[in-house]
Amino acid sequence: MSKRIVIVGGVAGGMSAAARARRLDETSEIIVLERSGYVSFANCGLPYYLGREIENYDDLILQTPQSLGARFNLDVRVGHEVRSIDREKREVTVVNLSEKSEFRLSYDELILSVGAKPIVPPVPGLDRPGVFTLRNMEDTAAIDGWIEEKSPRQVVVVGGGYIGVEVAEQLHHRGLEVCIIDAAPQILPPLDEEMAALAQEKIREKRMSLLLQSPLKEIGDGDGLVGVVRAGEHEITADIVILGLGVRPDSDLAKNAGLATGPRGGIQVGPNLQTEDPHIWAVGDAIEVMNPISGDKVQIALGGPANRQGRMAANNIYGADEIYSGTIGTAILRLFDLQIGSTGLKEAQLKSSRADYEKVYLHPKDHAGYYPGATPIALKLLFNPKTEKIYGAQAVGRAGVDKRIDVIATAMKAGMKVTDLAELELSYSPPFGSAKDPVNLAGMMAQNVVEGYLRQFHWHQMPEFDPTKQFLLDVRSAGEVSKGRIPGSTNIPLDALRGRLDELPKDKEIVVYCHSGQRSYFASRILSLNDFSVKNLSGAWVTYQGAGMETEE
Amino acid sequence: MSKRIVIVGGVAGGMSAAARARRLDETSEIIVLERSGYVSFANCGLPYYLGREIENYDDLILQTPQSLGARFNLDVRVGHEVRSIDREKREVTVVNLSEKSEFRLSYDELILSVGAKPIVPPVPGLDRPGVFTLRNMEDTAAIDGWIEEKSPRQVVVVGGGYIGVEVAEQLHHRGLEVCIIDAAPQILPPLDEEMAALAQEKIREKRMSLLLQSPLKEIGDGDGLVGVVRAGEHEITADIVILGLGVRPDSDLAKNAGLATGPRGGIQVGPNLQTEDPHIWAVGDAIEVMNPISGDKVQIALGGPANRQGRMAANNIYGADEIYSGTIGTAILRLFDLQIGSTGLKEAQLKSSRADYEKVYLHPKDHAGYYPGATPIALKLLFNPKTEKIYGAQAVGRAGVDKRIDVIATAMKAGMKVTDLAELELSYSPPFGSAKDPVNLAGMMAQNVVEGYLRQFHWHQMPEFDPTKQFLLDVRSAGEVSKGRIPGSTNIPLDALRGRLDELPKDKEIVVYCHSGQRSYFASRILSLNDFSVKNLSGAWVTYQGAGMETEE
Repeated sequence: MSKRIVIVGGVAGGMSAAARARRLDETSEIIVLERSGYVSFANCGLPYYLGREIENYDDLILQTPQSLGARFNLDVRVGHEVRSIDREKREVTVVNLSEKSEFRLSYDELILSVGAKPIVPPVPGLDRPGVFTLRNMEDTAAIDGWIEEKSPRQVVVVGGGYIGVEVAEQLHHRGLEVCIIDAAPQILPPLDEEMAALAQEKIREKRMSLLLQSPLKEIGDGDGLVGVVRAGEHEITADIVILGLGVRPDSDLAKNAGLATGPRGGIQVGPNLQTEDPHIWAVGDAIEVMNPISGDKVQIALGGPANRQGRMAANNIYGADEIYSGTIGTAILRLFDLQIGSTGLKEAQLKSSRADYEKVYLHPKDHAGYYPGATPIALKLLFNPKTEKIYGAQAVGRAGVDKRIDVIATAMKAGMKVTDLAELELSYSPPFGSAKDPVNLAGMMAQNVVEGYLRQFHWHQMPEFDPTKQFLLDVRSAGEVSKGRIPGSTNIPLDALRGRLDELPKDKEIVVYCHSGQRSYFASRILSLNDFSVKNLSGAWVTYQGAGMETEE
Repeated sequence: MSKRIVIVGGVAGGMSAAARARRLDETSEIIVLERSGYVSFANCGLPYYLGREIENYDDLILQTPQSLGARFNLDVRVGHEVRSIDREKREVTVVNLSEKSEFRLSYDELILSVGAKPIVPPVPGLDRPGVFTLRNMEDTAAIDGWIEEKSPRQVVVVGGGYIGVEVAEQLHHRGLEVCIIDAAPQILPPLDEEMAALAQEKIREKRMSLLLQSPLKEIGDGDGLVGVVRAGEHEITADIVILGLGVRPDSDLAKNAGLATGPRGGIQVGPNLQTEDPHIWAVGDAIEVMNPISGDKVQIALGGPANRQGRMAANNIYGADEIYSGTIGTAILRLFDLQIGSTGLKEAQLKSSRADYEKVYLHPKDHAGYYPGATPIALKLLFNPKTEKIYGAQAVGRAGVDKRIDVIATAMKAGMKVTDLAELELSYSPPFGSAKDPVNLAGMMAQNVVEGYLRQFHWHQMPEFDPTKQFLLDVRSAGEVSKGRIPGSTNIPLDALRGRLDELPKDKEIVVYCHSGQRSYFASRILSLNDFSVKNLSGAWVTYQGAGMETEE
């Protein structure tokens, strides 16, 4: 049973594999080779050290080679880079970076947890001092050093992905002026545009500059400590630049060893996390995984799956036959007082895959409205109206977002139907939830759609609204209407509707909206049962206005 | 299609049914008869008004007969008590309580949402002024009036169920001295004793008096505004007494109409919520429901299920064929800075049903330990080690308890296996969770138990610990040991264990513990793989000490 296991990469997946392997076998030799100077560091915590929410650099270090040696009897070597794999001889060639020496190391089983590396585009000027990526402890120290020594005023964050936005928030917190640029028309790629718009609004509310559809062209000479960033039509003086353009699998080592990789560069593994070489396993951000919702092979760089894959690879090396069930991609971000979460597929993905999908938007409170402090959650739920399969969810709010995303992610993993969400028994007490939890409500709305009780007109269809065939009805109170409304709408407050049905056309389709969607749903039922043709504006005023559509006072 | 629906009871289940029925049919006559003076009030919010966390009495009123009439065209009559049902004629006899008049009302469909009433035991003195139950708006006003007028100093809360404990917390918040008495050896019946002990500790920390195993005998003459409460061996001066002894179905109306009720008085319904009379439906706290985890018929009084049942009954009246899937009983309580949640069955129930069950205890942080503010959650998970069915969970902590209970409740509802919890993809970012979420960790521990990697010795088995056959090993650091330890234990810190194996007996079973259970699990693996017989003390020092077991300095 005793064997030598060599693990390349000592962070999430690699270290989980190493520790689990030791718990399964006391006699094996377990060697972890890590290129950087640190293993088991808090990679998701790096931005929070830059903003000093995490006060000490050392707090980011969860384990050291010494502590891992003492506790798990692991041979952990930092500053060791694996340059090549000789699959036939089962050996790796390793460079000791500090001693600049090279040696060969044999293995019985090799685990590749080589991670991903920041994408650096072929743009002039990215080699200037003061331009950084953020992936490891050394990057963090370098950024922090620049801030401490140079006292930069203006930071340009290139790319509005999760890491970019976290860094932007934290450097704002540290007192820098922040500009985020992104080539896309929105930030936060896991979200659909109208949900990302809520984050964008928060960023602008905090007086950070946000330049969308502004691809990075170059960094050139200019007034800033770094120079000037040219992006789209913009020129931004930059005292420090952080590249947050996402990551790609660091899979050259595997590729050069002849192991198959996917179209996005991820190492291909079987369902047991074994590569095509039976003695080589791969885990974490470097591998291609199945998304069980779409059935597609995808690249998803997340700490949770990496940790679980590491544990599973160790189990399988020791004779288990565990199957990795895939990654649906649950993620969350805190942005000032907002919580922004998502799981599964977004609408843009469903649209491009031509899936048969429907969606509901709702804005329930995070806990009972009669108990102080309740705040709304903007919740979007995507599902198949025929099979009732849940495709994904996105939520933005100030409290309780993580809980609802986790509950929906669990339901998705279990293969529950969207209408099953209506029947979930979730904890209710005034400080925590409502008798009908937001997830229950989402399930009930989906049930109404599935069963035909709720026909929807979506905010993004509004440009196609045809007043010769359609009639826009606002059922809010007069007071609400006076603060802003959708151009062309007619107001009849819900509670007066039954008495004013004769004001409505029977030969047009009525599109009805209210503030958050509940009253307009009630109205749509009244109208439908009175033989009007009616659709509900999904997400109502809140979604329409939040998506930046045209309004008037 | 047009019909008359009469609904008895206008709170959670009844009002959900009424509103849903209207959304399905504009033409039916829908009459809601409510005995009290209020419909659609926030019954779960009543304690929080007494503590003034909810500032205004009116905030508890979610809808009025007028608002329901305007919005849903409902005929809502408060102060109307239904005295009898004539099933043959399909008529109810109703008393208008204010006018003291009686009339008969015919129905096509009758929905009983008659709720439950507080249990008032046959004990002398409960009719004294100043003795209250808390179930509706009138009770709340009466308690509040007594406090405002009489300025009571000492409140005695009889019964430590959820309502009793919420009232106790809120009256403490309002400045009263609080004494809770309970006949049982613990409070909070949905929890097992060692989990309830954490709540009891918090109550005592707040200098509230807690008298367990002290059944109420009588309330007699004495110094207090109410008199003196005699409970067990105790006599407590009481200026106000709140009875929180639980509720029982208010099912006399149904019983007198010849409808079947269960052993605990709950109205019996089919899976579609229809009683044995095809024109009578019943929902909410008054009905007996199936617990799908145990397969037993149970009484569970919770707002969430009541609301969903009301909606379902309306759907079924209008031709749907929906099946109520049962109630697993998810509940949560906030007690000062503690969050206390549970779902499914507790160990005491499993023990009495002789189910084949196992359990794990763990104490993970609510979010990443390296990010500020992380606090531990005491989590207990019960499952069948053979079928891997999840039986239930209990959790106590200062943050993130509701989320973990809701995720586990969802997994239970979906019929996931306990080991599936290890693979859930839950949202991770330092402020919200960890790469291995507490629910993942619970699933991994269960997997270790199922697969035999983790053998457990439970804290409650410690009285049977036999030093001639067993050896108690403490693998914490010397510093931790100096603050308290289990009598008879030998200390070898985990990181020194591999070098000191010769100090341990091979002819005894080693029971190992640490602070929270992780290091002792690591130790148990080292020992097991070195051919020692070893068991892990479940929940380790934290559970052992929290359960009030013997310790020494």
